[in-house]
Amino acid sequence: MDDGLKIISGSIYPELAEKIAQELNVELVSNESKRFANTEQYVRIGKSVRGDKVFIIQSMAERNGYNVDESVVETMLLIDAAKRASASEITVVLPYLAYGRQDRKARGREPISAAAIIRAFQSAGADRLVSIDMHTSQMQAVFNGPFDHLTAEPELQKALKKIISQNPNDQYVVVAPDAGGVKTAEDYALALGIPALHIPKVRRGDEITRDHAIEGVEGKTAIIIDDMVDTAGTLVSAAEVLQKAGTGKILVATTHGILSDPAIERLESSAIDKMIVTNSIDNKRAKEILGDRFEIVSIHGLIANAIARINDGGSVSEMFDGRNYK
Amino acid sequence: MDDGLKIISGSIYPELAEKIAQELNVELVSNESKRFANTEQYVRIGKSVRGDKVFIIQSMAERNGYNVDESVVETMLLIDAAKRASASEITVVLPYLAYGRQDRKARGREPISAAAIIRAFQSAGADRLVSIDMHTSQMQAVFNGPFDHLTAEPELQKALKKIISQNPNDQYVVVAPDAGGVKTAEDYALALGIPALHIPKVRRGDEITRDHAIEGVEGKTAIIIDDMVDTAGTLVSAAEVLQKAGTGKILVATTHGILSDPAIERLESSAIDKMIVTNSIDNKRAKEILGDRFEIVSIHGLIANAIARINDGGSVSEMFDGRNYK
Amino acid sequence: MDDGLKIISGSIYPELAEKIAQELNVELVSNESKRFANTEQYVRIGKSVRGDKVFIIQSMAERNGYNVDESVVETMLLIDAAKRASASEITVVLPYLAYGRQDRKARGREPISAAAIIRAFQSAGADRLVSIDMHTSQMQAVFNGPFDHLTAEPELQKALKKIISQNPNDQYVVVAPDAGGVKTAEDYALALGIPALHIPKVRRGDEITRDHAIEGVEGKTAIIIDDMVDTAGTLVSAAEVLQKAGTGKILVATTHGILSDPAIERLESSAIDKMIVTNSIDNKRAKEILGDRFEIVSIHGLIANAIARINDGGSVSEMFDGRNYK
Amino acid sequence: MDDGLKIISGSIYPELAEKIAQELNVELVSNESKRFANTEQYVRIGKSVRGDKVFIIQSMAERNGYNVDESVVETMLLIDAAKRASASEITVVLPYLAYGRQDRKARGREPISAAAIIRAFQSAGADRLVSIDMHTSQMQAVFNGPFDHLTAEPELQKALKKIISQNPNDQYVVVAPDAGGVKTAEDYALALGIPALHIPKVRRGDEITRDHAIEGVEGKTAIIIDDMVDTAGTLVSAAEVLQKAGTGKILVATTHGILSDPAIERLESSAIDKMIVTNSIDNKRAKEILGDRFEIVSIHGLIANAIARINDGGSVSEMFDGRNYK
Amino acid sequence: MDDGLKIISGSIYPELAEKIAQELNVELVSNESKRFANTEQYVRIGKSVRGDKVFIIQSMAERNGYNVDESVVETMLLIDAAKRASASEITVVLPYLAYGRQDRKARGREPISAAAIIRAFQSAGADRLVSIDMHTSQMQAVFNGPFDHLTAEPELQKALKKIISQNPNDQYVVVAPDAGGVKTAEDYALALGIPALHIPKVRRGDEITRDHAIEGVEGKTAIIIDDMVDTAGTLVSAAEVLQKAGTGKILVATTHGILSDPAIERLESSAIDKMIVTNSIDNKRAKEILGDRFEIVSIHGLIANAIARINDGGSVSEMFDGRNYK
Amino acid sequence: MDDGLKIISGSIYPELAEKIAQELNVELVSNESKRFANTEQYVRIGKSVRGDKVFIIQSMAERNGYNVDESVVETMLLIDAAKRASASEITVVLPYLAYGRQDRKARGREPISAAAIIRAFQSAGADRLVSIDMHTSQMQAVFNGPFDHLTAEPELQKALKKIISQNPNDQYVVVAPDAGGVKTAEDYALALGIPALHIPKVRRGDEITRDHAIEGVEGKTAIIIDDMVDTAGTLVSAAEVLQKAGTGKILVATTHGILSDPAIERLESSAIDKMIVTNSIDNKRAKEILGDRFEIVSIHGLIANAIARINDGGSVSEMFDGRNYK
Repeated sequence: MDDGLKIISGSIYPELAEKIAQELNVELVSNESKRFANTEQYVRIGKSVRGDKVFIIQSMAERNGYNVDESVVETMLLIDAAKRASASEITVVLPYLAYGRQDRKARGREPISAAAIIRAFQSAGADRLVSIDMHTSQMQAVFNGPFDHLTAEPELQKALKKIISQNPNDQYVVVAPDAGGVKTAEDYALALGIPALHIPKVRRGDEITRDHAIEGVEGKTAIIIDDMVDTAGTLVSAAEVLQKAGTGKILVATTHGILSDPAIERLESSAIDKMIVTNSIDNKRAKEILGDRFEIVSIHGLIANAIARINDGGSVSEMFDGRNYK
Repeated sequence: MDDGLKIISGSIYPELAEKIAQELNVELVSNESKRFANTEQYVRIGKSVRGDKVFIIQSMAERNGYNVDESVVETMLLIDAAKRASASEITVVLPYLAYGRQDRKARGREPISAAAIIRAFQSAGADRLVSIDMHTSQMQAVFNGPFDHLTAEPELQKALKKIISQNPNDQYVVVAPDAGGVKTAEDYALALGIPALHIPKVRRGDEITRDHAIEGVEGKTAIIIDDMVDTAGTLVSAAEVLQKAGTGKILVATTHGILSDPAIERLESSAIDKMIVTNSIDNKRAKEILGDRFEIVSIHGLIANAIARINDGGSVSEMFDGRNYK
Repeated sequence: MDDGLKIISGSIYPELAEKIAQELNVELVSNESKRFANTEQYVRIGKSVRGDKVFIIQSMAERNGYNVDESVVETMLLIDAAKRASASEITVVLPYLAYGRQDRKARGREPISAAAIIRAFQSAGADRLVSIDMHTSQMQAVFNGPFDHLTAEPELQKALKKIISQNPNDQYVVVAPDAGGVKTAEDYALALGIPALHIPKVRRGDEITRDHAIEGVEGKTAIIIDDMVDTAGTLVSAAEVLQKAGTGKILVATTHGILSDPAIERLESSAIDKMIVTNSIDNKRAKEILGDRFEIVSIHGLIANAIARINDGGSVSEMFDGRNYK
Repeated sequence: MDDGLKIISGSIYPELAEKIAQELNVELVSNESKRFANTEQYVRIGKSVRGDKVFIIQSMAERNGYNVDESVVETMLLIDAAKRASASEITVVLPYLAYGRQDRKARGREPISAAAIIRAFQSAGADRLVSIDMHTSQMQAVFNGPFDHLTAEPELQKALKKIISQNPNDQYVVVAPDAGGVKTAEDYALALGIPALHIPKVRRGDEITRDHAIEGVEGKTAIIIDDMVDTAGTLVSAAEVLQKAGTGKILVATTHGILSDPAIERLESSAIDKMIVTNSIDNKRAKEILGDRFEIVSIHGLIANAIARINDGGSVSEMFDGRNYK
Repeated sequence: MDDGLKIISGSIYPELAEKIAQELNVELVSNESKRFANTEQYVRIGKSVRGDKVFIIQSMAERNGYNVDESVVETMLLIDAAKRASASEITVVLPYLAYGRQDRKARGREPISAAAIIRAFQSAGADRLVSIDMHTSQMQAVFNGPFDHLTAEPELQKALKKIISQNPNDQYVVVAPDAGGVKTAEDYALALGIPALHIPKVRRGDEITRDHAIEGVEGKTAIIIDDMVDTAGTLVSAAEVLQKAGTGKILVATTHGILSDPAIERLESSAIDKMIVTNSIDNKRAKEILGDRFEIVSIHGLIANAIARINDGGSVSEMFDGRNYK
Repeated sequence: MDDGLKIISGSIYPELAEKIAQELNVELVSNESKRFANTEQYVRIGKSVRGDKVFIIQSMAERNGYNVDESVVETMLLIDAAKRASASEITVVLPYLAYGRQDRKARGREPISAAAIIRAFQSAGADRLVSIDMHTSQMQAVFNGPFDHLTAEPELQKALKKIISQNPNDQYVVVAPDAGGVKTAEDYALALGIPALHIPKVRRGDEITRDHAIEGVEGKTAIIIDDMVDTAGTLVSAAEVLQKAGTGKILVATTHGILSDPAIERLESSAIDKMIVTNSIDNKRAKEILGDRFEIVSIHGLIANAIARINDGGSVSEMFDGRNYK
């Protein structure tokens, strides 16, 4: 590919960046990152990017000895370095955008943290953002410039269709674990040709709960859909509700496997038979522990394809027949 | 009140601004608006606002000989006039924010029109926005400054509770007309102490539809909840589904009665027994035609209260026990 | 031409954009514009513009079912769409810039509406503006970037010279209808080799008027020059003054034929023998009614030439021997 | 007056700032300005302005050992100092705005210098500008904030009316020296109740000139009006034309007496009987040389009045019955 | 004090903020900070700050379970929260500004991290910064607004003078540990009336070192001065050089005791007899371990005094007789 | 070279720009600069720069009839002209950056003039700055974009090494004239393999002075190093101290020979045997007067090399093995 394309990785998940670079047939530009004794980070871009289109890839999760805030600051510093090194255009690729759930003021005197982070990247000098299946797609609007929003749903649905085709006699139902997920669940249901339902919130005495018995799942394989799984608390509760209601197998499909503690332990002891995630976040450890119950769908090709189109002036929308914006 | 508070009305709905000003015990500052022959607008603020806190009130609907785009431009011109006239702070109060549904790219090469409008107001010089029950509360994040988001839900729920208390023997159910409304419907259901359900999207042959029979409404009074009613197409379809399913009475509660043609005609001939809206948008005409089937809850007090708190440095969140941000 | 050049038309006057695109030998990119029931607009750019130089052409007049404010908002939305679609550069071509007469505060508490509009386009993401014979050329200064200002004067003077050469025995005089037009009138006079005068403002009793008899026009053909003709009130009054003063034929040359009602009716019944305008604004209707008394000089070649030079890095000034900036 | 009002003077014309401060009954804050050997300037504000409204007064002319560019830089440095010293609001008062004639691109590849200067002040931190009788009032539009535009025309007309009342038997005519001044001349003519005319541009052989005989001035007192007089070349030529045409006395009224060399010498030997200017620019030297032929109308009261109104939240427009914006 | 003053503390060192609030006689506004499982932070300001002057106090060090990057992000979120909560003015007080040593590009393709951090705070909405003895005082220039720079040098010199007065027979010398500290060392030397010297860098074979014998310290008490002590490596080396050169006692005075591991251990086993630091950073642990060899000078009064003056419009410079800016 | 590269010179030192252009094998684009009678400047770029990379070269010193403030304003106007002429990228090359010593607030209510100047260039439209051996390299941080910082130290050291090699029997010592220069002096000392010392500040009675006898220079050749020499006061004092201390020859090496009056006279009568400067500033006059005692090292090649690399996307850091950022 064109030598004017430079891929740089943040410190969270360099293996993903490496795969993307290989797919694009370019060499990953090294990031000479380190930490000083007082926990300040230091970054340096390993070779000249003057006049180049720079893509900074950062998966904003707690992995590889870094946490989310360190990923925010490292990204800002890499943008600043690229800007001062005369990059012609800086694209920040965030396979998983942290702080995405803090997308509005839910109470007075809160920040809108997702907006604060997005604006910080823009102020630092980012010209374009790329992310995948954001918690709220409206966050695109905060960035005052192009924000290419990709979706891993086709990949996840492909994996689900394969399972369904291998078990042609089972009956399936898509389940949204809460009200906010109904719309996505309906989309999956239509794509897979099966019905959808959600677990409603009810008042039981003084308590608001989602644990009452639900109908329509008995004897069926339930496919729980969510955009991300963090501590897996909601997910495992939903699985329990489904189990009580007589569900057969329970599958889960989600783009972002954040899997903060004690998610892996919870999943291990849960009724969930299989969980499908993408590698937007590194999940080597979950894979080791959960084994065959945990399937990782790689999105490096998706990202590489988007970068190639951005670099060449191709259309990103065409990659998805327009399904990426939802 | 303090003389440093100046209320100016856009041309769409001056009666609402007048009520707000009366509630605040200040005189409405006149807006010498007119149109030139070539359809350009002209605005002029009627008295000095130098050093004052200016509140520009604009309900962005097609009313009073103005359409939505004219309300956008008039608002920009009023902001520009207030800025150049040395107002100390400019707050734009948008009881209904038009373009709010164009809140993300749904397909490639679309604008994010809501963001474009919000940014245009900020660029013109707006220091703060105020709106009510926006279609997507995440749009607050686009404005880089304070955006006070009010909710009329307590007022609407009060009106519903009154009806319920007058018909203590009826059974009620809250209905969301589509997947996107499930979360709000659940909130209403919990507040009113009744169950919630939604009308799911199903595939019938080649068609995606929401018209199949639903369970759990027979003999009950259904309360359909939505943030806005525009042409009333979805709403009237939902009412038909409910009627087919054996619903008793059908009530509707919505903050914004946009009621674009042919909404009023549709409502008139529909199965809906009663619709409750706020006066975020002027609906004199609907009231004349629909009479007792149409109830308007005034939010001028809500807005006046918020303006007073903004002017005095009080807390807007306290008005709602923190329920305004959702 | 280079495939990286993309021409998109606003909804006011697509025929002009089509002619420009043909001249440039490129295909006009479609604008999937429509209106929602509540009068909100929707736009979508018809094909990928990633990495391209986009030219948005919008004639800001009341034509084709759109008015001036709708043209403002459509332009903002098209800019936003192009920006978010990763256009490399966005140029807005405004053959006629509406709001151009509101170019300063004429009284306290007015906006400077022309500046508000220009800034809104810049905030939305416009990188360059192009316009023709603006009411006040100083408005270029408001845009913080390149603003190519073209002039149709050479085209109009060519048309006038042709008339003069066809009537070699007539005597001519250039007339400015008011004080503000004296400078332009003198320029025309020098270019055509004939004298210039203007109709002065005088006090008659309590009234300020421009209707008194003027000297120096008797028996001559008067050529009234103005940058635009809106309702034609001033113009027709000037023609009456000239007629009373014994003028022979009366010609009019103007770049922008806004011709708001009742301009065409006034022109039809006026003493004006011939009016020459450009197609900066669509005037099919005036042409139909006024016939041979109405001559349209096309500027599509002028604009296409400027776009080609902008795209290729050529000089726009050379197109006019430096006469475009005045 | 309120202690929160701080007046600081640039180095060009401290006597004017001193008069303004006295009129406002405040002490002028000292500006510890000096120059380093390499011609760099140093400024320092003499006392704390934290939380205060600061007014920086700078007459941008070549006076007192400073030239126009030095006045630009000193103003930028004073703004920067006030901003970093936590002034609550910074108003820059420019009795004469230099570079005001470079208000548009007159040819390709020129800057718009007036805009560059105004933007530099805004970027440095100016919150508001105040100026008097700018060459092009549209320059207000470049500043993205309040720009109070004052006019000295009422003061100049008062001085002219006094002369007229002292010579009741003379006949008067207002003369614009070129086409650009016709509009202002007509305004003066209406205010003084006398006729107006201008000296037209004509082609004589290969030359464009304004020196031909004009009619309508014989035996009358001519009052030449212009917004500024720089080298007095145009003015003295106009006086010669008038003299040849048989004019009686010749008066001149202008707001800004820039009087660059050799203006004073030209005026001294010219046919001009009396010139009236304001003290927007220091003209002690011209007064010494021209004596009674040179009358200075002080505008310190005008500026002090405007500052008081800005500080107190009063209306500046009312000072002029709205005549300041033209 | 005025109720319009609100002090909020970041999570690093709330005891310092509490002391400052007590000194100012206001209640510390609570910061409802916590962390989500995925390491995202959440902050919320505990009471209304609408219309108030908010001071956010954050000591950017690794303390109290937070590290430097977490302090950066928490500060950004607190600023965003205060901005959206309609604070009238936001001042960020950084007793120690982390990343201050990354103040320029030392090599190509590095960021200027200090600038990136300062700009991020400004973009988030900070109106003013306050810091103490920054590593490079030029960093003030990066912030485009008021940046009050305080110094703890008078406090530290007071502590040193006390020691000197208690040991009147000793001889003293100020020592800069490297070339960059010579200027500050000379200032201390002049203030204390004793000589200054520094430890030069020399080449020994292939190595650059500062460990050679120096003259002029034998039998004297050496006072090593530095703006900050991080891992104490340079400091302890300097102490060894001094010891080898026959120094008597060794004192250290520094504003910022960062004391990253293994600083405390190094200090404990070093030749340093006493180290004086301020509480710009929490050093309870060092005090516990080092006991009498470690003296903490409190600067809460200094900061409280500055905040009071900022709030009341007083002069911060006067606090130091102008010595704060160096 | 590529035709898209355009070099334009400010009026201070066109010969340097001419040399740079020759080195790059491009034609210098003319700058039609002149002054109006009132001291306003006028600039115009001599040929089309549409789509080109423009390099504006301005040495900000008092030379060629211009002073420092005029160089500031001319640079702003050239940037504005290039921006409005559609240059694709504007780089301002400042061989000597004036106002660089006003890099922080040294006292309250001062501006940070260096920052004000740098920001003014950025606001006007500069995309990148280039400078050489700035007084404070941290000033890079103020510019929010690429700022290529070059160093002439290798060139100066080459000249010094030549002298040393011609006088192999002499002993040398590098001398910093004050504390601020110690670090640079140590760097020179290490590069030249000789020792370094500085002249300390001491209190003599009530006075602070640097004139006391110093040790370690007797019989040696002293090489005084400074980044710039302005009036040469400090330098000549240092030379006197050295002479009193028994120094043999005295050499001086400095990047910027500002040489404001009376520097040349002082140098002429000083003990300095030879001064080496670069041509960052024009010093033809000093050369004429000082003859062989004054050696000019040309940096046109250095600048041309940097421009070529910027234009081609090469690495500027590699020019210096990373030594340019210090």
